[in-house]
Amino acid sequence: MTVSERCLLAKRNAHSVAESTEAEKNEMLSRAAEALTAHAEDILAANARDLSVFNRGEQLRDRLLLTKERIAGVAEGLKQLRRLQCPVGEVIERRTAENGLFIERVRVPFGTVGIIYEARPNVTADAIGLCIKSGNAVVLRGSKDAFHSNAAIVRIIKESLADGGFNPEFIQLLEDCSREGAVEFMRCKGALDVLIPRGSASLIQSTLENATVPVIETGTGNCHIYLEATADPVEARDIVINAKTQRPSVCNAAESLVADRSFAEKHLCEIVCALRDRGVCVVGDGASRNICAEIGAAAEEDFDTEFLSLKISVKIVENVEEAVSFINAHSTHHSEAIVTEDEAAAETFLRKIDSACVYVNASTRFTDGFEFGFGAEMGISTQKLHARGPMGLRELTSYKYVVRGSGQIRK
Amino acid sequence: MTVSERCLLAKRNAHSVAESTEAEKNEMLSRAAEALTAHAEDILAANARDLSVFNRGEQLRDRLLLTKERIAGVAEGLKQLRRLQCPVGEVIERRTAENGLFIERVRVPFGTVGIIYEARPNVTADAIGLCIKSGNAVVLRGSKDAFHSNAAIVRIIKESLADGGFNPEFIQLLEDCSREGAVEFMRCKGALDVLIPRGSASLIQSTLENATVPVIETGTGNCHIYLEATADPVEARDIVINAKTQRPSVCNAAESLVADRSFAEKHLCEIVCALRDRGVCVVGDGASRNICAEIGAAAEEDFDTEFLSLKISVKIVENVEEAVSFINAHSTHHSEAIVTEDEAAAETFLRKIDSACVYVNASTRFTDGFEFGFGAEMGISTQKLHARGPMGLRELTSYKYVVRGSGQIRK
Repeated sequence: MTVSERCLLAKRNAHSVAESTEAEKNEMLSRAAEALTAHAEDILAANARDLSVFNRGEQLRDRLLLTKERIAGVAEGLKQLRRLQCPVGEVIERRTAENGLFIERVRVPFGTVGIIYEARPNVTADAIGLCIKSGNAVVLRGSKDAFHSNAAIVRIIKESLADGGFNPEFIQLLEDCSREGAVEFMRCKGALDVLIPRGSASLIQSTLENATVPVIETGTGNCHIYLEATADPVEARDIVINAKTQRPSVCNAAESLVADRSFAEKHLCEIVCALRDRGVCVVGDGASRNICAEIGAAAEEDFDTEFLSLKISVKIVENVEEAVSFINAHSTHHSEAIVTEDEAAAETFLRKIDSACVYVNASTRFTDGFEFGFGAEMGISTQKLHARGPMGLRELTSYKYVVRGSGQIRK
Repeated sequence: MTVSERCLLAKRNAHSVAESTEAEKNEMLSRAAEALTAHAEDILAANARDLSVFNRGEQLRDRLLLTKERIAGVAEGLKQLRRLQCPVGEVIERRTAENGLFIERVRVPFGTVGIIYEARPNVTADAIGLCIKSGNAVVLRGSKDAFHSNAAIVRIIKESLADGGFNPEFIQLLEDCSREGAVEFMRCKGALDVLIPRGSASLIQSTLENATVPVIETGTGNCHIYLEATADPVEARDIVINAKTQRPSVCNAAESLVADRSFAEKHLCEIVCALRDRGVCVVGDGASRNICAEIGAAAEEDFDTEFLSLKISVKIVENVEEAVSFINAHSTHHSEAIVTEDEAAAETFLRKIDSACVYVNASTRFTDGFEFGFGAEMGISTQKLHARGPMGLRELTSYKYVVRGSGQIRK
């Protein structure tokens, strides 16, 4: 089956999830979760097959690797989705026009959601669960490297739905993992209502270049922590350490430290030492190196790089205005934080920083659907259209206007 | 100046409108409106220059044509925007997390909005007004055919702002109206936050093909009226006549009539006669022609065509399910109406039709920002991402998460 045919197949079956009741969707989630646990051995066997030919490095290998515990975690995630309220059907607003037309704005599923992602088979089950709960058909385009793992997960979930009497064909996995297939997928405008790329900057760039389907850009996070002149030095150090080292491979980890000169002259060396103690490579501009000899020389591109590893860049500024300009010029508009005791500086930062999430005196690591109370997460949007920041179930919906009249015509 | 440079210039000056107060934005609108009226002769002279070399037909010529009255209408539109509440700054929701983080979702302007449109100089002033009121910088790419008209309008508005002490450089008009310039514009991802094409299906298609900037697809309306078996024949006739003939050149006009066989056998001929009396060319499928000999033969593509003229296609179906399938397959997901006295049929139609606006017993002509009470309109979205249906000021905004902490780090 071609990519387009598979997308159309999902679309044609979208009604079977869109029109399911909350109870039916919860039963699908339970069945899927139980089936993943019951058939964990099959998934591990498929995963072993993928791993046996994988040679793209240890970090990516770890993302591809499934274990019994990881499968249990994925199943638990599906079960937890049952507790959330599906937002579909909500009447967002209503009004009666002067001519008597009764106009309601009603939340509806997108219809068919395309997900394109890399060799992370847990995304397969996560995305299926989120689409079930939000009433969307889903077409999955995973990496070739994870194909057997993905195919096993999708087959097991679909069989579990069919066993329960549900039509599972609103879930489709593309078997064509070629580059040409990906481009065809990105252009399936008649079948897909939205396309969500989840993965590296290069995947997202390729999606933006090729897609005619509306895209939600996710994930790339060149996040900054700005230490303003009045920052509490202990709080500053703790936030920097947390944002950089608690989990360096994720998009909400900090990649760049911006510090007011007056703060840096007093406290930067201590923070740099604390970072180096934790294995972080610290590089910076000339001003930062004059203040702290332990800082290496940053290349120009370091300030525009999402390291996703134990590396951080340092930039010295004179004040909050310069910090805002620097950050807006270099950030990916994901998450940025100011550490300060000055309320005016905090408000300037919050207002002027053009990012999805802006923080005062907290770690950027909180940009997360679970931390924000959504109970789930499809990714973190870095665009301004539709959704910004963490995306939960609500962000997987659209709306339509439902208008009831009694013969009204326009004069 | 290149297209990219002009977009960046708008972006660099976006703060001057984003941070303006409501009173300042209202003063800008007043100044712009007064200046357009005061300098109407200059605009008419520029418009005459455009018209003198225009040879693309009477209908398009009428869209390009400005008159003193039309300029007064545009100025009045700008004045009316003052009465509307700018939605920027609204706290859409707030919560305090268990760890004490105070999370607010705050409405913000998009930043910089790109508008690409055809030879309709009134759009120039409308778009500037909507962007002023919503706090957005705007880059306008009009048609070469309207260049002198657009340049005069933009110059007059910008001079009026500068005279009032406002920085007008958040408004930029592209002087490069070439095809290559349009493509460069659609790819100005670093500068533009959203791109809104307003115009023909071919303009919108070209935008989708080329854009890397997020796009809001607007306008194409292959709208259907479905006459269900129980429809009141007088109401049905009045709605069809209104939706087809009251203003055939706009996107919310009806292009296709779908009728249940049992209704058609009794009432279709009368409706077709009423349409023909008003100069409408009626074409249909074989079943409709068997019922009413006055109907011409429809070509296959007629059912997928937005005529924007006095022409309508007719399709006979057996029931609401067949009507829904037919409409979902052929519509552009803009506006569709059912005429019926059967509540169950109405609810099926409302639920299953996948369009921005779905109507029971009313004309599709009501899909309009003013009719929906928005007080303004930037276009009508036919996509599901971000905004669907009429777009007013609120649809020209995004949001960001503002998070205030006291040293929180992630465990």
